[in-house]
Amino acid sequence: MKNIDINCDLGEGFGAYHASNDEILMDYISSANIACGFHAGDTNTMQHTVNLAIKKGIAIGAHPGLPDLQGFGRREMSITPAEVYQMTTYQIGALYGFVKTAKAKLHHVKPHGALYNMAAKNRLLAEAIAQAVFDFDHQLILYALAGSEMITAAKQIGLASASEVFADRTYQDDGSLTPRNQPNALIEHEQQAIAQVLMMVKQQQVVSVNEKTIPLIAQTLCLHGDGKYAISFAKLIYEQLKAEEISLCTPTL
Amino acid sequence: MKNIDINCDLGEGFGAYHASNDEILMDYISSANIACGFHAGDTNTMQHTVNLAIKKGIAIGAHPGLPDLQGFGRREMSITPAEVYQMTTYQIGALYGFVKTAKAKLHHVKPHGALYNMAAKNRLLAEAIAQAVFDFDHQLILYALAGSEMITAAKQIGLASASEVFADRTYQDDGSLTPRNQPNALIEHEQQAIAQVLMMVKQQQVVSVNEKTIPLIAQTLCLHGDGKYAISFAKLIYEQLKAEEISLCTPTL
Amino acid sequence: MKNIDINCDLGEGFGAYHASNDEILMDYISSANIACGFHAGDTNTMQHTVNLAIKKGIAIGAHPGLPDLQGFGRREMSITPAEVYQMTTYQIGALYGFVKTAKAKLHHVKPHGALYNMAAKNRLLAEAIAQAVFDFDHQLILYALAGSEMITAAKQIGLASASEVFADRTYQDDGSLTPRNQPNALIEHEQQAIAQVLMMVKQQQVVSVNEKTIPLIAQTLCLHGDGKYAISFAKLIYEQLKAEEISLCTPTL
Amino acid sequence: MKNIDINCDLGEGFGAYHASNDEILMDYISSANIACGFHAGDTNTMQHTVNLAIKKGIAIGAHPGLPDLQGFGRREMSITPAEVYQMTTYQIGALYGFVKTAKAKLHHVKPHGALYNMAAKNRLLAEAIAQAVFDFDHQLILYALAGSEMITAAKQIGLASASEVFADRTYQDDGSLTPRNQPNALIEHEQQAIAQVLMMVKQQQVVSVNEKTIPLIAQTLCLHGDGKYAISFAKLIYEQLKAEEISLCTPTL
Repeated sequence: MKNIDINCDLGEGFGAYHASNDEILMDYISSANIACGFHAGDTNTMQHTVNLAIKKGIAIGAHPGLPDLQGFGRREMSITPAEVYQMTTYQIGALYGFVKTAKAKLHHVKPHGALYNMAAKNRLLAEAIAQAVFDFDHQLILYALAGSEMITAAKQIGLASASEVFADRTYQDDGSLTPRNQPNALIEHEQQAIAQVLMMVKQQQVVSVNEKTIPLIAQTLCLHGDGKYAISFAKLIYEQLKAEEISLCTPTL
Repeated sequence: MKNIDINCDLGEGFGAYHASNDEILMDYISSANIACGFHAGDTNTMQHTVNLAIKKGIAIGAHPGLPDLQGFGRREMSITPAEVYQMTTYQIGALYGFVKTAKAKLHHVKPHGALYNMAAKNRLLAEAIAQAVFDFDHQLILYALAGSEMITAAKQIGLASASEVFADRTYQDDGSLTPRNQPNALIEHEQQAIAQVLMMVKQQQVVSVNEKTIPLIAQTLCLHGDGKYAISFAKLIYEQLKAEEISLCTPTL
Repeated sequence: MKNIDINCDLGEGFGAYHASNDEILMDYISSANIACGFHAGDTNTMQHTVNLAIKKGIAIGAHPGLPDLQGFGRREMSITPAEVYQMTTYQIGALYGFVKTAKAKLHHVKPHGALYNMAAKNRLLAEAIAQAVFDFDHQLILYALAGSEMITAAKQIGLASASEVFADRTYQDDGSLTPRNQPNALIEHEQQAIAQVLMMVKQQQVVSVNEKTIPLIAQTLCLHGDGKYAISFAKLIYEQLKAEEISLCTPTL
Repeated sequence: MKNIDINCDLGEGFGAYHASNDEILMDYISSANIACGFHAGDTNTMQHTVNLAIKKGIAIGAHPGLPDLQGFGRREMSITPAEVYQMTTYQIGALYGFVKTAKAKLHHVKPHGALYNMAAKNRLLAEAIAQAVFDFDHQLILYALAGSEMITAAKQIGLASASEVFADRTYQDDGSLTPRNQPNALIEHEQQAIAQVLMMVKQQQVVSVNEKTIPLIAQTLCLHGDGKYAISFAKLIYEQLKAEEISLCTPTL
């Protein structure tokens, strides 16, 4: 029987701004990536989201981002590997504070937004992130784009990783995501997205924008928690996987 | 033979602003309270200061403060016990990130500035801090004003504490510090400050502003790291204690 | 014929967090208080909201707050009059940047949240705000709680003010608002709120919690822009005022 | 008789961190670029620095930077022209608040750090800055790297500009600065720097790293205010210019 992890970025509110879908979304996923205060996630939201994840029994991950609240961590910054190591360490530690005081377990780390995208392509930044995660706790799992430099960097130092795939993004022939500024970057139709997910999970393959069937390691599926259809789409994916007897399951070492 | 801990607030730079005395001061103290990013202390400064403390062999403590960089954490804010618990947890965790990745040990927690002052007098805030420290790691030691609500709150839940005294502040008859807005709050003369320290350490007593000799528990002495005489005064205290055969020693459980 | 100004705090999003009611609310009000970046309101939101207000033809005001994004400017801070003067000046100037580049006119200033509440009772803080507004442009109008120290401070230096009243708050016998921590602080029923508004506008009186009819200067009515009934309530007030032939009208010098 | 403007970045402290050279440096310069809160410069520092500049009689300029206090505005960020327009407008307005309340005049705008460097090469960002300055007040002068896209963008819309040159940086054959990551980017010897300044001011030429004499428009000279030799170098330049009968003079429309 096949299985897959479904992860979602949660706890992305800040102060008076609430990420209201979180509790419901947790019924349809197995891993939560919780914002750590730099791009989103104030101290109250972090504690609340960690406690919700514990209650719902889903795996807790740190979701470190660039220090850019206005840009929601989505604007690339020119930062050194040392700075990336430091901001990753700080944010993992901060989230771990809430996990440890709640007597729970930190399970994984997934970089956010521009940090994720930069480290997917830049070996030195990828190594800085992998090393920071490993140095904090070598039993953590790094969630990162399938085929990216982060997966390579993790393997290189013996850090476990989970290759991430997307339901609503199209792929190039080389297995990379179609950049968002291209017209066909997003899959708009739910059924097409579902079909892509099922193919990725069951066959570890995907059909590229050029209609080529290419191999793809799919260990964790990213669901987007924002947008008005986020909950209905989460539910749909969840039910389709169930119908196909694919079980939800967090990655393990 | 008598002994005492000397602690100092360190790592209080931010980004391009450096706290330049830190490395030298570490030669004359036994405990470092390291800023955690809210009132001072960016990620680079935190990592650097943790590593310096390890090199110098002094005890590492988290120094959480209010989220107020412009006010350096010195402006009181109207915050709830839940918010205090959360900001303490976050900052301890964040500093712990650097401590853990450096394979060192987190030893204590000392609240900073207005957070320290508010929790010294407010039982609910004191309990929130003590509980946050205890929940993170019940083997940590809470550094707090001798005779304050924080010391009481720590004892109440079985958390170790170290009663803090000051070289350059005068005391009231009830053992509290003379508020800074009063003319005689500060001890300006070095020799008078040294004499007060020696009396506190050797006799666990202090002479109040009204010339009364009162009991005072002195387990850790706070040195100020800023000011132009910080280093020379640190050195002077250090040598005087040595001359009196009082050894520097961090508090233990 | 009677008239009244209706003001609303707008532009209170930040970055990825949007204050989505703003455009619709502007159809039912005459004055917008626009957040200036300290408690809410990033640069993009500020420009967007200023431009919306221009399009809708409503008066533009700066809405300076405490530097506390996590607390949304609602947590009191211990700040000096000099600091209040500076933070007011900075924020008025920042908003004025967008007003001036759009060739529009800055009409008023209304302090936000804890800054508003502190300055309502504290003469020195009230004077600092009034002076900052006056020094920036003595033709601006200060919106402040009816009967507060801010109204007094404005009059004292010849700054125009608009006395603010609330639809959904109850009043004490002395004309002050019932503190929010008391059970009867809020008016829950829409019709009761409407009745209070009509009495305040038409008779410049209000019935206190002790059933006394007391005088009250009502020059601008504050509508809350958040909450799920914000828009429907704004519309209701607007229509009731129209039915009573009370016209919407911004305060003038 | 020749003349030149000397500008310096000032008010670059934040909260408890002071930029201590400012007052002395003002004796040797004619233009102050004052930080506006994003990369440095809190509200208190801004007011203080504006008032110092007024007292010393030097021209006041806004010095907007990227929103990155930890990185001191020196880390490039991926931002859109619209975002650049907004952050420039906000920061000019904020500084103008202090200038206007002090009844002084805002004279110029000089972008800081990475914003300056990005806009020097990127036409769209350069246009966004020039337009923001022009829209705020078309009588302001844009200080920008000689030969850069910012100078071109200013000219294009009829905004006055001042071409900036550097005493301690070397130049390429095309008139651009040698990038800092190259070994010969900086001029280490004071006499060599002075010689370069005199040549630039008197002949509007500079000798490139390849020993070619190239033309260069020199309207304002940038002095660095940090570094331990900042004051002595400022004084030296000032005296050499005086000895050569070159007068200090701010750019005019």
